[in-house]
Amino acid sequence: MRGVMMYAPGDVRVEDRPDPTIQLPTDAIIRLSASCVCGSDLWPYRGHDHVHAPTPMGHEYVGVVEEVGADVATVKPGDFVIGSFFASDNTCQICQAGYQSRCIHAELMGGTQAQFARIPLADGTLVATPGMPDADLIPSFLAASDVLGTGWFAAVAAAAGPGKTVAVVGDGAVGLLGVLAARQLGAERIIAMSRHESRQQLARQFGATDIVTERGDEGVEAVRELTGGYGAHSVIEAVGTQEAMMQAIRATRPGGHVGYVGVGHDISLPGEELFFSGVHLHGGPAPVRRFLPELIDLIWQQRIDPGKVFDLQLPLEGAADAYRAMDQRNAIKVLLTP
Amino acid sequence: MRGVMMYAPGDVRVEDRPDPTIQLPTDAIIRLSASCVCGSDLWPYRGHDHVHAPTPMGHEYVGVVEEVGADVATVKPGDFVIGSFFASDNTCQICQAGYQSRCIHAELMGGTQAQFARIPLADGTLVATPGMPDADLIPSFLAASDVLGTGWFAAVAAAAGPGKTVAVVGDGAVGLLGVLAARQLGAERIIAMSRHESRQQLARQFGATDIVTERGDEGVEAVRELTGGYGAHSVIEAVGTQEAMMQAIRATRPGGHVGYVGVGHDISLPGEELFFSGVHLHGGPAPVRRFLPELIDLIWQQRIDPGKVFDLQLPLEGAADAYRAMDQRNAIKVLLTP
Repeated sequence: MRGVMMYAPGDVRVEDRPDPTIQLPTDAIIRLSASCVCGSDLWPYRGHDHVHAPTPMGHEYVGVVEEVGADVATVKPGDFVIGSFFASDNTCQICQAGYQSRCIHAELMGGTQAQFARIPLADGTLVATPGMPDADLIPSFLAASDVLGTGWFAAVAAAAGPGKTVAVVGDGAVGLLGVLAARQLGAERIIAMSRHESRQQLARQFGATDIVTERGDEGVEAVRELTGGYGAHSVIEAVGTQEAMMQAIRATRPGGHVGYVGVGHDISLPGEELFFSGVHLHGGPAPVRRFLPELIDLIWQQRIDPGKVFDLQLPLEGAADAYRAMDQRNAIKVLLTP
Repeated sequence: MRGVMMYAPGDVRVEDRPDPTIQLPTDAIIRLSASCVCGSDLWPYRGHDHVHAPTPMGHEYVGVVEEVGADVATVKPGDFVIGSFFASDNTCQICQAGYQSRCIHAELMGGTQAQFARIPLADGTLVATPGMPDADLIPSFLAASDVLGTGWFAAVAAAAGPGKTVAVVGDGAVGLLGVLAARQLGAERIIAMSRHESRQQLARQFGATDIVTERGDEGVEAVRELTGGYGAHSVIEAVGTQEAMMQAIRATRPGGHVGYVGVGHDISLPGEELFFSGVHLHGGPAPVRRFLPELIDLIWQQRIDPGKVFDLQLPLEGAADAYRAMDQRNAIKVLLTP
């Protein structure tokens, strides 16, 4: 099969790789219907994370089950399925509490920018759609695999809901889908923090009521002005930098909630400021699996259209261009067709 | 009147000071029935916080209303009242959400280690008991003013409740009352982390089911062993040091809750570890006012006895001895009688 490999920062290649096979009786093999490039793939691409060896890329996936191991009971060949970037057993105490990304048997996915993929713990990890989806729904299901699930978790962690003002730091796919999630969860007012025209427009389509273009402490001040001086009830952090985290904490009113899902890079939170902020802080790698049944239902019923974050579609063979477009922020998110 | 002043680290004196008077129509003057020394008073006493000028000490108080300003409507002379270390209007959006310690008009209390005290925003700050309490209830009401309210908030922030295993880092008065609060909130199992025999005994009286004597990563390992490898659902941090915070975060299972109330000193939380911990983190200066009606009711009905944390009682004139006893950990908490 063909698959994407990263050799070094900036060096992404599509190569012949061995077809994946069932390794354990809990595995499934899927034929990818679509895959994509994640904002987190840009950390190694930009040299912020090390690339120690040529690495199969990709952790977002939707596709059709080709084959299952002997112990797999909940999905079968021919099913259209969605999973998340952590495989999970969905039965341990951590999974049952809704934190499947920290399952005691969690396995980080990789190599799904390819034609086929092996999915460990298939019963716990994969959720099938009610039937074979129309092609135009595939981008939305693919979004559910990570960026929608992550934005949704951030909105839940930020306690977005009726009567709440939600601010969103970060206008990448996760931040934009955090806007969509806050809307679905009933937030009264949603402030998208973005200085990019096209992203502002998508934020408004997804439900943003206000746009703040300032960043850092100026952005905090703007949110305070919009909220009677109190700060937002809920703030979603979807960047993963020190500045973004402090912007999120400072834009939140005392007793409010920060939901943070940007993978933290060189972040250090000052204890005393955090203490006196009085905020709730919750985040981490999103337990996307918790939300998949609900998200699949919303997409199947065409009540949400998160696939709009894919503003560029390329064949798998064009992966190098896909990375480049996202690196240069020429695309919000690139869908790859195998 | 007589009142306690701190001149410098280790230098505490009882002096003649002017009687407080009504300054604003929202003030009340109370005659202290009892006051006490707080663990947080030890930070300046030990030189960790600066003492820039001679400072009136004390922020915990119960007493009888002597006089009220023209606008005060909810308490009247003769009432026995309890307030918290932050005066609050109890009407702003932050107060109404239960975060009175961060009221937009919050005033940090001081100078209640004295015979009389001025209480700003009396209507919002003070809560009267149903009648004049017997003398033996006064220590418990005094505990409600800070250490009980703070331990209670920590337990609520840590989401202590039925079916939960709660670990408590810190065996000072707040940690011990965190144990009591977790018990009242219905926790199934309560692990007190303490290496002091007398404090372990009090923890058990308050409801601890297990004692862990190890600290730091060894303490974390011990909590994990007691919880099937998962970590505690809920951890209360009641110390305020880097080691205690990391111990609390690491002892919590993914998706669990850390309630932290130790006033942070030189704490810096590593973003990446916090991210992958997947915990909920909430704390800060406890909004004791939120809990006062409930706590007063529990004490009035003699269903809890938080006053047991006072293991030494001295006259106000013995304040220097009181500070010394707490500094040397010869007393958990010292009650001062005016």
